[in-house]
Amino acid sequence: MDLNTLASGLDTIWVVLTAAMILLMEGGFALLEAGFVRQKNAVSIIMKVFVDITFGALIFFFFGFALMYGKDAFGLIGTSGFLMGGDLTHINMSISHDTYWLFQCAFVIAVISIVSGAVAERVNFHAYILYTISMTGLIYPVAGHWVWSVGGWLGSLGMIDFAGSAVIHALGGFSALAAAIIIGPRIGKFSENGTANIVPPSNLPLASVGAFILWFGWFGFNSGSTLSATNGSIGHIAVTTMLAAASGGATCILFTMLRYRKADPPMVINGSLAGLVGITAGCAFVSDLAAILIGSICGIAMVFVTEFMESKRIDDPVGAFPVHGISGSLGTLAVGLFAKPELTANVGKGYSGLLYGGGFHLLGVQLLGLATVSVWGFALTWVTLKLIGRVVPVRVSRDEELIGLDVGSHGVPAYSQDHDFIELDRLKISNN
Amino acid sequence: MDLNTLASGLDTIWVVLTAAMILLMEGGFALLEAGFVRQKNAVSIIMKVFVDITFGALIFFFFGFALMYGKDAFGLIGTSGFLMGGDLTHINMSISHDTYWLFQCAFVIAVISIVSGAVAERVNFHAYILYTISMTGLIYPVAGHWVWSVGGWLGSLGMIDFAGSAVIHALGGFSALAAAIIIGPRIGKFSENGTANIVPPSNLPLASVGAFILWFGWFGFNSGSTLSATNGSIGHIAVTTMLAAASGGATCILFTMLRYRKADPPMVINGSLAGLVGITAGCAFVSDLAAILIGSICGIAMVFVTEFMESKRIDDPVGAFPVHGISGSLGTLAVGLFAKPELTANVGKGYSGLLYGGGFHLLGVQLLGLATVSVWGFALTWVTLKLIGRVVPVRVSRDEELIGLDVGSHGVPAYSQDHDFIELDRLKISNN
Amino acid sequence: MDLNTLASGLDTIWVVLTAAMILLMEGGFALLEAGFVRQKNAVSIIMKVFVDITFGALIFFFFGFALMYGKDAFGLIGTSGFLMGGDLTHINMSISHDTYWLFQCAFVIAVISIVSGAVAERVNFHAYILYTISMTGLIYPVAGHWVWSVGGWLGSLGMIDFAGSAVIHALGGFSALAAAIIIGPRIGKFSENGTANIVPPSNLPLASVGAFILWFGWFGFNSGSTLSATNGSIGHIAVTTMLAAASGGATCILFTMLRYRKADPPMVINGSLAGLVGITAGCAFVSDLAAILIGSICGIAMVFVTEFMESKRIDDPVGAFPVHGISGSLGTLAVGLFAKPELTANVGKGYSGLLYGGGFHLLGVQLLGLATVSVWGFALTWVTLKLIGRVVPVRVSRDEELIGLDVGSHGVPAYSQDHDFIELDRLKISNN
Repeated sequence: MDLNTLASGLDTIWVVLTAAMILLMEGGFALLEAGFVRQKNAVSIIMKVFVDITFGALIFFFFGFALMYGKDAFGLIGTSGFLMGGDLTHINMSISHDTYWLFQCAFVIAVISIVSGAVAERVNFHAYILYTISMTGLIYPVAGHWVWSVGGWLGSLGMIDFAGSAVIHALGGFSALAAAIIIGPRIGKFSENGTANIVPPSNLPLASVGAFILWFGWFGFNSGSTLSATNGSIGHIAVTTMLAAASGGATCILFTMLRYRKADPPMVINGSLAGLVGITAGCAFVSDLAAILIGSICGIAMVFVTEFMESKRIDDPVGAFPVHGISGSLGTLAVGLFAKPELTANVGKGYSGLLYGGGFHLLGVQLLGLATVSVWGFALTWVTLKLIGRVVPVRVSRDEELIGLDVGSHGVPAYSQDHDFIELDRLKISNN
Repeated sequence: MDLNTLASGLDTIWVVLTAAMILLMEGGFALLEAGFVRQKNAVSIIMKVFVDITFGALIFFFFGFALMYGKDAFGLIGTSGFLMGGDLTHINMSISHDTYWLFQCAFVIAVISIVSGAVAERVNFHAYILYTISMTGLIYPVAGHWVWSVGGWLGSLGMIDFAGSAVIHALGGFSALAAAIIIGPRIGKFSENGTANIVPPSNLPLASVGAFILWFGWFGFNSGSTLSATNGSIGHIAVTTMLAAASGGATCILFTMLRYRKADPPMVINGSLAGLVGITAGCAFVSDLAAILIGSICGIAMVFVTEFMESKRIDDPVGAFPVHGISGSLGTLAVGLFAKPELTANVGKGYSGLLYGGGFHLLGVQLLGLATVSVWGFALTWVTLKLIGRVVPVRVSRDEELIGLDVGSHGVPAYSQDHDFIELDRLKISNN
Repeated sequence: MDLNTLASGLDTIWVVLTAAMILLMEGGFALLEAGFVRQKNAVSIIMKVFVDITFGALIFFFFGFALMYGKDAFGLIGTSGFLMGGDLTHINMSISHDTYWLFQCAFVIAVISIVSGAVAERVNFHAYILYTISMTGLIYPVAGHWVWSVGGWLGSLGMIDFAGSAVIHALGGFSALAAAIIIGPRIGKFSENGTANIVPPSNLPLASVGAFILWFGWFGFNSGSTLSATNGSIGHIAVTTMLAAASGGATCILFTMLRYRKADPPMVINGSLAGLVGITAGCAFVSDLAAILIGSICGIAMVFVTEFMESKRIDDPVGAFPVHGISGSLGTLAVGLFAKPELTANVGKGYSGLLYGGGFHLLGVQLLGLATVSVWGFALTWVTLKLIGRVVPVRVSRDEELIGLDVGSHGVPAYSQDHDFIELDRLKISNN
C-alpha cells in the first residue's frame, strides 16, 4: 500500500459517496413535488423524476458528457468522450474518468428535475421525455462546457461557480420559467380577473421530508464538488452550506410571520432550498457571515418573486423559478461581491469580490456568465419545446388535466382507498 | 500516524458507511412494500421489515455468521464465530471482524426482506418470525458459505457473484416464490375463471421513494462489497450500477408505453430495481455497455414474468420473484457471458465470459451455482414453511385477511383520519 | 501529497459525512412525529423541526458553540468562539474548527427535536421559537460544556458519555418531561376519571420510515463521535449500535406480544429507538453482549414508563421521555456497570465498570453526571417556559387546538383531498 494508492482511494470513495447523496436528491425532488401538487397528479410528477434519472443518465452517457467535458473546440463545445471513450487526457484528476462521470451525471439529473416541477400537472409525458433528452444531451452540457470544462470560454474569463448556482440552478430555473410560460397555467389556477387561486399542496409532510433529503444531498453536492477529499475547503463548504440553508429557512419563518401573520410552510420549505441554491456558487469562497446573508436574501427574494409570478399569471406549481432561477442568480452574483481572495486562491484564481477590494472585475464576469447561461437556458428551452410541439402536444388534453395525469397518462391513481377493493373482494367472495 | 493505520481507517469508514447505506435500504423496502399493498396491510408489512432487521441481526450474530463465514468444514458449512467468538483467523482483511460482520449483517437482512414482500397481506406474524429465524440463521448462511466463504465449494469451483445476484437475490427470489405458492393468493386476487384482479397500490408516492432509497443504498451494496476503499474497481462498480438501473427503468418506461399504451408506474419502479438486481453479480466485471444491456433485459424479463405469474395464479404482491429471482438469475448468468478478463483479474480470477473468449467454462459454473442456490432456497423455504405450519398457521384467518392485518394482527390502522378522534374529543368536551 | 494531509482529509470527510447523516435525522424526526400525531397537526410539528434546524444552527453559531466549547471558565462555561471567532486553541484535533462546529451543530439540533415531540399538538409556535433559542443557546451548551469540553467539571471527574446518552438524550428527555407537564395534556387525551384515551397515529408508515432514517443517522451519530477516521473503535461502535437497536426492537416485538397479545407497532418503533438511545453513551466501551442487554432493558423500560406516564396523566404524544429520558439515563448508568477497561483505555480513561472490577467509582460519577444534567434540563426548561409564558402564551387557544395547529397556526392543512379544488376548478370552468 503506497501513499498514492491511498490518496486515490480516498478521493474515489469521497466522490462515489457524495455522488450517491446527490442521486438520492431525486427521491427528495420526487417527494417535494408529489407533496406540492394535487393528489391526482402525484404519480405523474414522480414518473417524470424517473424519466430524469433513467433517460438523463443514459443520454448523458451517450452524448452529454462528451459535449460537456470532451476535448474543447473553440471554447464552445466538447468533442470527445462519447460512451466514455475517446481522448479524455485533458481531464487530469486523481479519480478515474468513470467516477468523474458518475458525479457529473448526478448533476445533470438535478438540472432536469428542476424543470419537471414547473411543468407539473399538465405536461404531456411524451413531450417531457423528448425535452429531457434535449436538456441532458445538449442544453445543459453546452452551457456547462462554457463554465466548467477545460477551455470553456466563460471559465477562461474567470467565472467562478463552485457547485453550480449558475450552471445548475440558474440554467435550470430559467429553463423552468420558459417551460412554464409556454405550457401555460393549470386550469383554474387563475380567475378571469387575473387573481390567483389557492391550490393547497396535497401532502405537506411528504414535501417537507423531500426538503430534508435535498438538504442532506446538498452536502454531497457542494462538498463533493471539490472532487478530492484532501481539499482543504471541505469543512468550510459544509459549514457555509448549513448556515445559508438555516438562514434561508429562518428568514422565511420570520418574514412570513410578518407578512402573512402565519409562518407559511411551503415558503419555509422553499426558503431553506433557496438558501441552499444561493450558496452553491460561493460555498468555498465566502465567509460564514456572508453565507448567512446570502441565505437570508435568497429567502426573501424567493417570497417576492413567487408573489410576482402569480401576479403575472405565470404558473410554476412548486416554485422552481423563484427557488432555483432567482437564488441561483443571486448566488452567482454574490460571489462577485463576497469572494475572499484567500479562499479563491484555493482554486488557483486569486480574484476578490467587490467588498474585498477586487473591484468590479469579478462581479462583471459573474454577471456576464449568469446572463449568458440564463438566456441560453431560457431560449433553448423555448425553441426546443416549440419544436417538440410540432411532433407531439406539449400539454395534455383538457379532459386529461381535469381527470388528473395519474389516471390519464399512467392508468393508476397515486393513492387508493381500501373501499376500492373491498367491493372487489365482496364480488369474489360471493362467487366463492 | 503511519500508512497502515490510515489504510485500515479508510477501509473501516468505507465499510461502515456503505453498511449503513445498505441498512437504510430497510427503510426503502418498508416504503416500497407499504406503498404497493393495500392500506389495511401497510403497517403489517412494515412490522415484518422490523422483524427482518431486529431478529435478523440478532440471529445472524448468534448463529448465522458462524455458519456462513466460520472455519470451513467440507466446503459445506462454517463452524466457528458464534457470537463473533472463536477462531476466525482464516478471514484475513484490513477491517476488523466486527466491521465485516456489520456489512454481512446488512446483507442477510436484505435477503429476508425480499421474501417479506411475496407473503404480504396474508402471512401470519408468528409464522413469519419463525421463518425469519430460519432464513437468517440457516438457509442463507449455508448457501452464502458455498459461494463466498473461504473454502466454500461453489466459490472454489470459480463461481463469481460479486455482490450477490445469486446469493442474495436469486436465493431470496426463489424463496419468495416458494413462500408465495405455499401460502396461496390473497382473497379476491384471482377470479374463478383464473383472471387476475387489479389491486391498485395504496400509496405509489411512498413506493417510489422506497425505490429511490433502495437505489441509493445499492451504491453501498455494490461498491461497498469491495470491502476496501483502495480497490480500483469502486468507480467502475458505481457506474455500472447506475447505468443498469437507468437502463432497467428507461426500458420499462418505453416497453410499457408500447405494451400497455401507458408508462406503468409499478413496472417502472420494479424495472429500475430489476436493473439493479441484474448488475449486482457482475458490476465489477462487465463493461458499461454490457451493464446497459443487462439492465434492459432484466427490465423486460421482469414485465413478462410478472404477467406469467399472474397467468399461473401465483400471487406475489410486490413482484419479489420477477424482480429478485429472475433478474438475480439473469445477472448471475450474464457474468458468464460478459465478464472481461482484465476486470476479473482484480479478484485474482482470470476467467473470461463466453463473449470474451472464455468459452463455456465460466458460464457453466455460474449456471451450476445459480441452480444450486435457487433450488436450495426454494426447497428449504418449502420445507421450513411446512414445518412451521405444524406449529402455527402460516396464513391468517379469512376474517383477519378481510379486515386487514394491521388491525387484525397489530391492533392499529396504518392511517387514521382525524374524524376518528374528533368524536372522541367531543365526548370529552361535553364531560368537561 | 503527504501523510498528514491525507490523514486530515480522511478525518474531515468522515466528520462531514457523519454530520450530514445526523442532520438527515431531522427528516427522521419530522416523519416520526408527523406520523405519530393527528393529521390536523402534522405540518405544525414539522414546522417545529424546521425551527430546530434553522434557528438551532444559527443560535449555536452565534452563541451556543462558544458557551459549550469556548475557553473554559471555572469548569462551568465556555467564554470564546462566538461566531466561530476568538481563541479556540484549546481545541486540538486533526479537523478544522469549522468542521467540528458542524458536527456539534448536528447534535444540538437533535436535542431540541427531542423536546418538540413532547409538546406536539398544542404548543404555541411563537413560544416554541423562544424556547428553541434558549435550549440551543444556553441550556444544552452549558450542560454540554460540563461533560464534553476541555475543563468541564463533570468530564474532569471522569464522566464518560461517548455520544450523548446523558448530554443529548437524558437532557433532552427530561426537558421534554418538564415541557409536557407545564403545557398539560391535549384536550381529550384523559377522561375525567383519569383513564387515557387512545389517539391513534395518523400515519404509521411515515413514522416507521422516520425510525429507519433515525437508525441510519445513528451510525453517523455514534461512529462519527470518534471525530477521527483512524480511531480503532469505529467498527465496534457501529456493531454495538446495530445490536442494541435490534435488541430494543426485537424485545418490544416479543414483549408486546406477551403483554398486549399483539406486537404493537408504535412500541416496536420506539423500542428500536430506545435501544439506540441506550447504547449511545457506551457504544465504544461495552461488549456486544452488553449492547444486546442494554437494548433489551431500554426497550422494556420504555414500555413501562410509557404506561406509567399515562397513568400519571402526563401527555407526551410521541414518547419523548420514555425513549430519550429513560433510555438515556439507563445507558449512562450502564457505562458504570459494563465499561471494559481495555475499551475505555482508547479515550485515555482507564476506568472500569462495576462488573469489570472497577468498583462503584465510575458508576457513582455516571450517576452524579446524569442527575446533574437531568435536573439542569428539567429545571431550566421549567423556568424558561414560565418566563416565556409571561411574554406569549405557551399553549394555543382551545379553539385552535380543536381545529388543529396546521390550519390554526400555519393556515394550511397537511393533507388536501382533490375534491377541495375540483370545486374550485368547476367554478373556473363555468366562467370560461
